[in-house]
Amino acid sequence: MEALKQRILEEGIVLSDQVLKLDAILNHQIDPKLTTVMGKELAARFRDQQVTKIMTVESSGIPIAFVVAAELGVPLVFARRKKTLVGDTETYSERVPSFTKGIVTDIMVSRQFLHADDRILFIDDIIANGDAARGLIKIIERAGATLVGMGVVVEKCFQHGASSIREQGVRLEALVKIKSLEDGKVQFQE
Amino acid sequence: MEALKQRILEEGIVLSDQVLKLDAILNHQIDPKLTTVMGKELAARFRDQQVTKIMTVESSGIPIAFVVAAELGVPLVFARRKKTLVGDTETYSERVPSFTKGIVTDIMVSRQFLHADDRILFIDDIIANGDAARGLIKIIERAGATLVGMGVVVEKCFQHGASSIREQGVRLEALVKIKSLEDGKVQFQE
Repeated sequence: MEALKQRILEEGIVLSDQVLKLDAILNHQIDPKLTTVMGKELAARFRDQQVTKIMTVESSGIPIAFVVAAELGVPLVFARRKKTLVGDTETYSERVPSFTKGIVTDIMVSRQFLHADDRILFIDDIIANGDAARGLIKIIERAGATLVGMGVVVEKCFQHGASSIREQGVRLEALVKIKSLEDGKVQFQE
Repeated sequence: MEALKQRILEEGIVLSDQVLKLDAILNHQIDPKLTTVMGKELAARFRDQQVTKIMTVESSGIPIAFVVAAELGVPLVFARRKKTLVGDTETYSERVPSFTKGIVTDIMVSRQFLHADDRILFIDDIIANGDAARGLIKIIERAGATLVGMGVVVEKCFQHGASSIREQGVRLEALVKIKSLEDGKVQFQE
């Protein structure tokens, strides 16, 4: 994904050794063309896995997850954060800390949309510490569904999320891997 | 949109005279095919409006807004709710009550992604009381941008959001209009 690397270099803002702001392409503004190319690439990597459902956690993962779902011809379920008045009580929920928000949130999936015979592909925008990701993986396990893998746009290799998920035996694919943000510079892992 | 009406009748759950749960097709699970058809229809209605940007408020509006953005070939900007550590201070924000969440939230748009020369098409899933919508419209006005219109999947005619926005002179298009949820039945307005 050279086009994506180029966009990250041009439009990403390194806020610290830990934080890369990608509001211009992932977290606030979306380029539909780039997102479509990225989603098709992730779909291609899991096309032979008999995926029955795409899952993500709201919000930034929704556009790319939508493209993957459209490409594979399966529904998209996005886990919700926190409880709303119209939410039902028939939900799986996991409490997770959020690195970017500095708070704890509950992520929830209705039992209506996640079944033991589902083969789930989990799509997200960025994996850093992986707290929300591990929460959703726990929910998928509790439902007895099969997690066929996880696909992300950006993996931050210097944080432990991706490695901890791979250690669980999950196949995790990233479109780009970032090795370091030191000295204000994005360094990719080849 | 007869297909959409059919899905609402089959999968929508009337919780009260005011609340229709559409988790199966809009707010939790998404059918990419239906969403693509709906997004193309909304895009067609505004294709002659020289739209430069699609805007929505996270989260449920993102899938349909993404389709409209892809169809019109323009970026999608989704307004964020609440402040995060990686959010910048250069944001427009509006405090809005949420009918469904029973809480007050701040919706925010970075000044970086909303300019005076933008022609904005605002896309959302459902318009009920319209609090978040009026908040985003205020933000668009404060930026000096032009709001060419608003497109929603579902308009709940018996709540005042849509009428209050039309009274402001905004062109608001809905794919389906719901007249009433009385006696547990969805009644459409023809």
